[in-house]
Amino acid sequence: MWLAPRAVSVKASVAVKALTPTNPKQVVDSLEKCEAAYAAIKQQGLKLDMTRGKPSSEQLDLANELTSVLAPTDYKAADGTDARNYGGLDGLPEMKAIFAELLETAPANVIVGGASSLTMMHDAVVRGLLHGVPDGDGPWLKSKIKFLCPAPGYDRHFAICQQHGIEMINIDLDSSGPDMATVEKLVAADASIKGMWCVPKYSNPTGETYSAAVVERLASMPTAAPDFRLFWDNAYVVHDLYDTTDPLLEILAECAKAGKPNRPLEFASTSKISFAGAGVAVMAASPANVADAKKHLAIQTIGPDKLNQLRHVRFFKNAAGVKAHMQKHAALLRPKFDAVTRIFERELGGSGLAAWTKPRGGYFVSLDTLDGCAKEVVSLANQAGVKLTAAGATFPYGKDPRDRNIRVAPSLPPLDQIRAAMEIVCVCVGLASIRKLLA
Amino acid sequence: MWLAPRAVSVKASVAVKALTPTNPKQVVDSLEKCEAAYAAIKQQGLKLDMTRGKPSSEQLDLANELTSVLAPTDYKAADGTDARNYGGLDGLPEMKAIFAELLETAPANVIVGGASSLTMMHDAVVRGLLHGVPDGDGPWLKSKIKFLCPAPGYDRHFAICQQHGIEMINIDLDSSGPDMATVEKLVAADASIKGMWCVPKYSNPTGETYSAAVVERLASMPTAAPDFRLFWDNAYVVHDLYDTTDPLLEILAECAKAGKPNRPLEFASTSKISFAGAGVAVMAASPANVADAKKHLAIQTIGPDKLNQLRHVRFFKNAAGVKAHMQKHAALLRPKFDAVTRIFERELGGSGLAAWTKPRGGYFVSLDTLDGCAKEVVSLANQAGVKLTAAGATFPYGKDPRDRNIRVAPSLPPLDQIRAAMEIVCVCVGLASIRKLLA
Repeated sequence: MWLAPRAVSVKASVAVKALTPTNPKQVVDSLEKCEAAYAAIKQQGLKLDMTRGKPSSEQLDLANELTSVLAPTDYKAADGTDARNYGGLDGLPEMKAIFAELLETAPANVIVGGASSLTMMHDAVVRGLLHGVPDGDGPWLKSKIKFLCPAPGYDRHFAICQQHGIEMINIDLDSSGPDMATVEKLVAADASIKGMWCVPKYSNPTGETYSAAVVERLASMPTAAPDFRLFWDNAYVVHDLYDTTDPLLEILAECAKAGKPNRPLEFASTSKISFAGAGVAVMAASPANVADAKKHLAIQTIGPDKLNQLRHVRFFKNAAGVKAHMQKHAALLRPKFDAVTRIFERELGGSGLAAWTKPRGGYFVSLDTLDGCAKEVVSLANQAGVKLTAAGATFPYGKDPRDRNIRVAPSLPPLDQIRAAMEIVCVCVGLASIRKLLA
Repeated sequence: MWLAPRAVSVKASVAVKALTPTNPKQVVDSLEKCEAAYAAIKQQGLKLDMTRGKPSSEQLDLANELTSVLAPTDYKAADGTDARNYGGLDGLPEMKAIFAELLETAPANVIVGGASSLTMMHDAVVRGLLHGVPDGDGPWLKSKIKFLCPAPGYDRHFAICQQHGIEMINIDLDSSGPDMATVEKLVAADASIKGMWCVPKYSNPTGETYSAAVVERLASMPTAAPDFRLFWDNAYVVHDLYDTTDPLLEILAECAKAGKPNRPLEFASTSKISFAGAGVAVMAASPANVADAKKHLAIQTIGPDKLNQLRHVRFFKNAAGVKAHMQKHAALLRPKFDAVTRIFERELGGSGLAAWTKPRGGYFVSLDTLDGCAKEVVSLANQAGVKLTAAGATFPYGKDPRDRNIRVAPSLPPLDQIRAAMEIVCVCVGLASIRKLLA
C-alpha cells in the first residue's frame, strides 16, 4: 500500500546540509536529527518500490491499440509473406527497415528476433562459446575467456557472463564512457579478452552517453584477440527524456571505417517502446556476423513471430512513428526523473555526501554515496519501507568495490510515490554517511 | 504456377502394375511404358511443391480471429499480471492450464515459451552441453556424447545434434515405435548416450504412434547414463485426422512410475494449431527439470510474450476449445492425406515397388521405395517439376542407409495439385525401380 507523498515528507536537508565533517559538534547534531527523522519515517510502515526498470501502466497504455491493430485478414507482409506461417529467419522487410533507420544502419545488417534483446545477447554469447565467431579460431570455451564490464552497468549482462564462467573485469565509467586508457591497455595485451559489454546511450544505470572520442577509440583500438566483440546494447537508442538527444556515433560504420567491421554486435528492442513483455528485438552487425548468426539461428528456430512484427509495423508505420511515440513516453517519464534529481539536489546538494546523475534519457538515475555506504543506505531504506535495487547489483559478481552505487528506477511508480521514496532515501544517505564518518 | 490435375494425370498403373521382375520381357515393356509416361509429364513443365510441412492458408484462416481477439484494454491475466509488461518466466497460469490438460499433466510441470518448440528443444540441448542436467555430473560437452535417433525422423532434430557435434545413432522404427531391443542394449551399455529424439505420436514422417509397450520400456529401461533424457517432441499431440485418436501413454507419469522422473523433456506448440509462425510453445518436465530450466531461462530472458499467450487463451478458451479447433484442421487435411494414399494404392498397390504409411494424424506420409531408389525418384520427380523433400533428409547426417525413404507433405498444396504430384511420383517410382531392377 502506498501513502500520499506529503505524509512522509521529511526535511532531511535540515540534518544533511548542516553537516561539516570537520566540526564534530555539528556532526553529532546532524546524526541526532537524521536519526529522529528516520525513526519517524519507520513508524509510518510504508511500502514503496524503486527497484524495477519497468514501464508504468500509463506508458504501456500508449500502445494499447497495438493489440488490435491487425484486422483478421491483415497478415500479408509487403513482399507477400504470410506472417501467420513458418519461415523468415531474419524478419519481415518492413520491420527490418524500421529498425535499420532507428539504428542508422542498412536493413541487410539487421536480424529481427523474438520479443527479447536479452535473449539475442545471451544466445550470441552462447554461440561464441560453443562455435566461435568470424575472425576467431573456434569455440571460445576451448580456453578461459574474459569480458570487460564497464561498471556500474546492467546486472543481466553480468549474469550472462557469470552463468557461463566468463571472467569479468571491471572498467570505470565517467560521463564520457568507459575508461579508455585502461580498456586499450587490457585488450591490447590479453587475447583471452573476447568481449565487452556496452550500453552506449543513456547507460544503465548512469544515464550517460559515450562520447564520439570514446566510440572512435573502441572501434579502432588494437586487440590481441582477433575475434574481440563489442556487445553494444543500444537499449535506449530512442529513449530521450527531452527534446534533444545525446549524440552517439553509429558503431557499425565506425568499426568498418577503422577496418574492424566484425567487432560490434548491436542489440535493441521495442520493449520500452511498445510493450516490455511483447515487443520485438533486433541484432545489427556486419555481413559476416549476420551470416554467421543466421547459420546458427537456422538450427535454433524456423523463425521469429512475424505477426507481432507486422502488428508493430502497422502501429508505428515507420521510424518517424516510433520517434513520435517516444515523445509520449518522455512526457510521462520526464516529471519522474526531474523529481528524483530535484529532491537529491534539495536534500543532498552541497553536502558532499552523495553524487548523482541527471540523465537526458534512459531508465535510471545513478546515486553514488560515500565509499562504503551503499549497502547500509539500501538496508536502511528497506527497513523504512523503500525497496531499492540491491547495492552491488550494478557490478560484476554483485560486488561494488567501493560500495557506493545505488540504482534508482523512477519509471514504474507514480510521481507522488517517487517523491516520498526519494526523500526517505536522502534521510538514509544522511544517516548512513554520518554514522560512517563517526565510525 | 500450378496446373489443373487432370492435365497431368498419367496412368502410371499401366506401367507399374504390369511389372513382374522375374519376367524380363514384361519388365522391358514396363520400362518403355514408364519412360513414355515420364517423357510426357516432363513436357508439361509443371511446378508442384510437396516439400513443406506447413499448414495451408485455409488452415491458418481458421484462427484469423486470434489476431484481433484482444481488445485494447484486455491485457490482465487471471492472476492480475499485466501481460504487456516484463516478467513471468514460465507463462500465464491460464496458458499453463491449457497446455497441462492437452499434455495430460499438471500445470506445475509446464514452462510456456515463445513461439517455437524447436527453440525450446535446441536450448535444452545447449543447456545440457554447457551446464549439464539434474542427475548428471556437469556439462555434457566435457566428453563426446551421443543421441539415439529413431529414423526416419525429423530433420531439424538431427540438425541440432549435428551442429553441436553430438554423434547420432540410427534406430529403426516400425509401426509400434523404435526398435526397443536395440535401444535397450545401447543405453544400458554406453554412458555417453545422453539423449534420444522421439516424436511419439503421428511421428514425423511415418505418422505412426508409439505403442504402450514401447513407451513403458522407454520409461523404465536401465541406462548407463544417469542423466539420460528422452527428448519427447509431442508435436502432433492433438493432430488427429479422424474421429479417433491414437492412444499414447503420458510420458511424465510413466517415467515417474518407473522411478525415472527426470528422464523426459516433453515439447509441444500451437504452431500447427493456431499460427505456424506466431503460436505458443511449451516444455513439460519433472519438478527438478523445470527448476533447472528456469534457473537458466532466468539468465536468457525476462520472460516470453505473455500477450500472445493471452490472445491464445481468449481465442481457444480451454483445452476443449483447442480440440474442437483441431477438428476443423482435420476436415481440411483429411482429403489431402486420403488422396495421397489412395493414389499410391491405385498406382503402386501390389506392385512390390513401394510401401507407404496411412497416418491417422500428423503432417506427413512416408513412402519407402525399393532399396537404392529414393534419391533417383526425388531427382526424377524434380526434373518433372515436382519438388520432394531431399532423399535422406529424414535420417541423421542426411544419409538414408538404404536410400529408400521419401517424406511426402500434403498439408500445404491444394487437393488437385496433390493428386497431380502424387501421380507423377508414382511414375517416377515405377521408372526408377525398373531401371534399378534392370541394372
